Amino acid sequence: MSTGGELLVYVENKAGRDPAYAITQDAWDSVMPADLPVKAVFHLDSRPNLPALEQADVFVGSGFDTERLRLHASRLKVVHCTSAGIDKYLPLDWLPAAACLTNSSGIHSDKAREYALMALLMLATRLPKHFSDQRHHRWNPFLSGVAAGHRVLIVGLGHIGCAVAAAARILQMHVSAVTRHGRANPEVDRIGTIDRIHDFLVDTDILVLCCPLTEETRGLIGEKELACLPAGAGIINMARGPILRTQPLLEALSGGQLAGAVLDVFDAEPLPAESGLWDAPNVIITPHVSCDIPSGYTKRSLQILKRNLIRLAKGDTNLENAVSRSRGY
Amino acid sequence: MSTGGELLVYVENKAGRDPAYAITQDAWDSVMPADLPVKAVFHLDSRPNLPALEQADVFVGSGFDTERLRLHASRLKVVHCTSAGIDKYLPLDWLPAAACLTNSSGIHSDKAREYALMALLMLATRLPKHFSDQRHHRWNPFLSGVAAGHRVLIVGLGHIGCAVAAAARILQMHVSAVTRHGRANPEVDRIGTIDRIHDFLVDTDILVLCCPLTEETRGLIGEKELACLPAGAGIINMARGPILRTQPLLEALSGGQLAGAVLDVFDAEPLPAESGLWDAPNVIITPHVSCDIPSGYTKRSLQILKRNLIRLAKGDTNLENAVSRSRGY
Repeated sequence: MSTGGELLVYVENKAGRDPAYAITQDAWDSVMPADLPVKAVFHLDSRPNLPALEQADVFVGSGFDTERLRLHASRLKVVHCTSAGIDKYLPLDWLPAAACLTNSSGIHSDKAREYALMALLMLATRLPKHFSDQRHHRWNPFLSGVAAGHRVLIVGLGHIGCAVAAAARILQMHVSAVTRHGRANPEVDRIGTIDRIHDFLVDTDILVLCCPLTEETRGLIGEKELACLPAGAGIINMARGPILRTQPLLEALSGGQLAGAVLDVFDAEPLPAESGLWDAPNVIITPHVSCDIPSGYTKRSLQILKRNLIRLAKGDTNLENAVSRSRGY
Repeated sequence: MSTGGELLVYVENKAGRDPAYAITQDAWDSVMPADLPVKAVFHLDSRPNLPALEQADVFVGSGFDTERLRLHASRLKVVHCTSAGIDKYLPLDWLPAAACLTNSSGIHSDKAREYALMALLMLATRLPKHFSDQRHHRWNPFLSGVAAGHRVLIVGLGHIGCAVAAAARILQMHVSAVTRHGRANPEVDRIGTIDRIHDFLVDTDILVLCCPLTEETRGLIGEKELACLPAGAGIINMARGPILRTQPLLEALSGGQLAGAVLDVFDAEPLPAESGLWDAPNVIITPHVSCDIPSGYTKRSLQILKRNLIRLAKGDTNLENAVSRSRGY
C-alpha cells in the first residue's frame, strides 16, 4: 500500500488485442468512485514496468505472464482477471501466498444466453448439415422438427451454464445438468454429480459444455462419452477446447454418430489452418466469441473489481469472484 | 357430387417427395369425422386417373399440374393446396369459375418462429461471416453485441410474418412491418404500406421477407432497395426467391454493403449447383425448409380442409383460407 493508505493498482493491457478488451483510463474513471483510495497506472504487457509492479497492491489484466508476477509482484493482495476462465494460470503456485485471484465470471451471461439460443436452434434444425451441404453445392431438403422437447445436458452450472439453461427453457427443451456437487437447482429439470455423466449422456439430444477447465474436466468428453450419446445427438462447446477430445469428436462426426457440433473453443487458439476441424462434416466453428461483447465488457469486469476494492479499503478480505486455490476455478 | 350427396375428393400425392408431405389414408382417417359425407381416393401425380378427376368435387395436393385441372376437373368446388404459397398456380385462370382455391397458410407458425429466431440471432452475431471465415480456415475473432435493440423490418404480416415478429420480440428487437394495407397491428412497433418501404429500409438492421409472391412483390427488393439499407445490414428470405433479385443481392454481399444473408428460397429450386449463391460471401443457405416439419404437417393442412368440408356439406361456401382471385394470395 502506498503512503497515505492508497492501493496501488497495476493495470496491464495486451498489445494488439481487440479494443473491446482494453482497460482504459476512461473505463476506469467511469467505474471507480472518486473517493476510493486507489491509484491506477496503465502499462502494456510488452513494456512492463517492473519497479511499479514490485510496489503494486493490485494487478489487473488477462492473458498475463504468471512467471513475471511470481518474480516481481510479491506485495500483491489481489490479481483481478478480466476474463472468466483462469485455466491458463493453473496451477496457482505463482500467486503470492497473501494474494487472492479474482475472475470476471458473471459478466458474460446476456451474450452467452443468446449464443446458446442460436446454437441450440442450429442443432435442433440440423444447420451444421445444411452448412456441409452448402459447401458441396448440395440441395438436400430434409426437414427438422421444432426444438421443444429436445433433451439438453449442461455440464457445469455456473453463470454461463445458467444462461444456457435459460435459453433451453425459452425453447421448451428438457434441461438436465451435471455439476461437481450435484445440488438441486431451480434452473434445471434434473441434476446429478459429474461422475454420473454417463447415466445422463444416454438421455441427451444436445450436450452443452460450459464447465471450467481443470485437471478433473480435461478430456472429460472422449470416445466412451460420445458413444453414450444417442445416435444423431449434437454438441456445443463454449467452455474450453481440451474438455472435448478432438480426435474422438472427429471420428464421431465422420461416422455419423454425432449429427453436428457447434464449437467456439479449441485446444490451440487461433485454431491452426491445418486443423481437421475446419472441414469436418457437420461442424460450425466460431472463433471464441460466444460470450464476449464489443462494448461495455471491460466496464462490467471493473465493476467486480470496484466492489472488491471497496471491501479491501475497509479491511474486508472476503472478495467477490475469488478463485479457489483447491478447486482451480 | 356423387349419388347419396357424398363429396368426392381426389387426393394427389407427388411421387418421390419427402414422406412428411404425403397425404395418406391414415392421415385422412385420423382427421376426418366418420360421419362427414366425403369419399377420398388417393392417386399419384405420375399416374393420374382422369375419369376420377372428372367426377371429383374436391382436389387436394400441392405442386399440381394446373393445366390438367383446367382440362379434366370442371366440376371442382374446392382445390385445397397443402402448402401456404400458391404463387406457382398464378394466374388463377385455370380454376373452374365455381371453384375456390384454399391454401394451408397458418400451419407453419411454430417452425417459422424458430427459424426466424435462429436466423435473426445468426445475423445479429454475424454468423454468415464466421461461416465464410470457416470455409477459408480463417481465425477472425471479431465480437458482436447482443441482439436487443436491432431494428427488424418484416415485409408481409401474415401468419409467418407474425411468427417472425414474435421471434424478434423475444430478442427485444425493435419491430417494423410493411404490408399491403398498412393497418396498425399489435405485433409490431411501427407499420406502413408497402409503397413506403424505402422510408422503412433506411432504419433497418435486418430485413425479413415473408410476403406472398405476386406480380406486386416480384423483384420488390433490388439494387435501389438494398442501397437504402444501412451499411452492414442483413437479409432473411423465407418468402419466395423472386421477391429478392439475385444479381443485386450478390453485388451487395460482395461489396460489403450487406453483412449477411440467410436464404431459404430461390428463383429456381433445387438451387442449381452452378449458382453463384452457394459460394457468395456471408451467405447461409437452407433448402426451403424454414417452415415445414417432418411429422404432423399433412394433418394440420387436412384440418383446414376438414373445417371447409363441414361448411360445404352444410351448403356454406364461405371457406377458411380461401385465396383471393384478385390479390393472388
